[in-house]
Amino acid sequence: MVAAATMSTGAEIRAHCRTNDFTRQTSGLAPGYVQCNVVILPAQDAEQFAAFCKRNPQPCPLLATSRHPGAADLPELGDDIDIRTDLPRYRIWEHGQCTGQRDDILDLWQDDWVAFALGCSFSFEEALSNAGIEIRNVSEGVNVPMYRTNIDCQSAGPFEAKMVVSMRPMPASDAITAIQICSRYPSVHGAPIHLGDPELIGIADLNQPDFGDPVSVRANEIPLFWACGVTPQVALESAELPLAITHEPGHMLVTDLKNASLEGEASWNA
Amino acid sequence: MVAAATMSTGAEIRAHCRTNDFTRQTSGLAPGYVQCNVVILPAQDAEQFAAFCKRNPQPCPLLATSRHPGAADLPELGDDIDIRTDLPRYRIWEHGQCTGQRDDILDLWQDDWVAFALGCSFSFEEALSNAGIEIRNVSEGVNVPMYRTNIDCQSAGPFEAKMVVSMRPMPASDAITAIQICSRYPSVHGAPIHLGDPELIGIADLNQPDFGDPVSVRANEIPLFWACGVTPQVALESAELPLAITHEPGHMLVTDLKNASLEGEASWNA
Repeated sequence: MVAAATMSTGAEIRAHCRTNDFTRQTSGLAPGYVQCNVVILPAQDAEQFAAFCKRNPQPCPLLATSRHPGAADLPELGDDIDIRTDLPRYRIWEHGQCTGQRDDILDLWQDDWVAFALGCSFSFEEALSNAGIEIRNVSEGVNVPMYRTNIDCQSAGPFEAKMVVSMRPMPASDAITAIQICSRYPSVHGAPIHLGDPELIGIADLNQPDFGDPVSVRANEIPLFWACGVTPQVALESAELPLAITHEPGHMLVTDLKNASLEGEASWNA
Repeated sequence: MVAAATMSTGAEIRAHCRTNDFTRQTSGLAPGYVQCNVVILPAQDAEQFAAFCKRNPQPCPLLATSRHPGAADLPELGDDIDIRTDLPRYRIWEHGQCTGQRDDILDLWQDDWVAFALGCSFSFEEALSNAGIEIRNVSEGVNVPMYRTNIDCQSAGPFEAKMVVSMRPMPASDAITAIQICSRYPSVHGAPIHLGDPELIGIADLNQPDFGDPVSVRANEIPLFWACGVTPQVALESAELPLAITHEPGHMLVTDLKNASLEGEASWNA
């Protein structure tokens, strides 16, 4: 395993992924650099998946797509990205089921495949931390808790899903500031989509997340729920495509973009 | 009483105030025009009151001040404003007690007095309504409920106060949008300062407001609390000045400014 000191940039992490000597989670690595969720599909399904992202920008904020089918680079995100090798770990999906993991997909890649890179909550977590807000999953050293909700995404062709959300608890004054800050980052899920009572969006028990780990919620805190990049994996389950590839959760594509570059004008929820 | 049709602008309302043939509340009148809280003080107290406003911009967002002691106009807010006559009704304060109401203060005005005009929630209520958000005090036709909290304002000289807040309940998704919209209106109280559990800011019972009227809160709603322009009246109580003047609550100075002109870049809570 390589030393963390040699992985302070996106380019360094990708170089180690490429030689398969780094295959772990990327949370907290290369601070300041944008990390991405990845979905890879055959061209025949790509147009409808792009429509799904466009119709559901909060769970599926599209940062970049292959220039053409078969193009394995993503020049908008980094100089030398090879999407077939540059993730620490990949998930293989067959007919809507995750059937395995790989450290690269060189032998699976086909010349009509299209890669999608979607924004990730690591970017706004950094902005919140910089504002002095405690991120409970970070301070407790666990994965963020994620839940399936009763909120319907807009469907597109075979892609349909109930929205998956991530949850971070905080005091009300931090919650208000978090909404203000995240509104400036629409390309990484934007503002929360819900706060307060979990049952109102179909979550029965905060202590039993569908993905990730539970975190403690204190008496003076309110849970905030953000649209989550796991949602497209749920859409892949429903689409039951013969073959598709994603990143292994937490094992993200680390780019050359800086999180600060994603900050823009405050954008309102639809 | 004059017909509402002749009061569609700030100038028209002020003209009717000036002749004392309009002395009622201004809520809902002259849609689109900025209405202001007003505080009038002798020059010797004005500097410290200005400091109180500057230190507490959320409850006391200062829009305009007299050009010099004794100047009864406010040209930043309207062409022909006479602060001695142009409010529907005034409150007289003596030694921290409200001792009476007047329709004008021509006979009280002194040549060292200074007027302060502060932003008012009517402006952001219009922005929220335009976004399709129901404002409960408007739909129930009552005054907004207001509460004394346990939140200390920054004091300045004799002026000190626990913050007064107004409360509007709404579903969580509207609450998030309301925070986003109000963040663009820092000069009319800005974003809420609290949401959720009222006890966390010292409010024992939402059904018993300290000012205004109670409104219904539905099971799927969350209460939002905004810093309120009644706070400076509480500061006047504590300051116990020999003489001061304010507007009668709800009986505002209606200006020539448009609410839309107050919209700016989103600003974060301190």
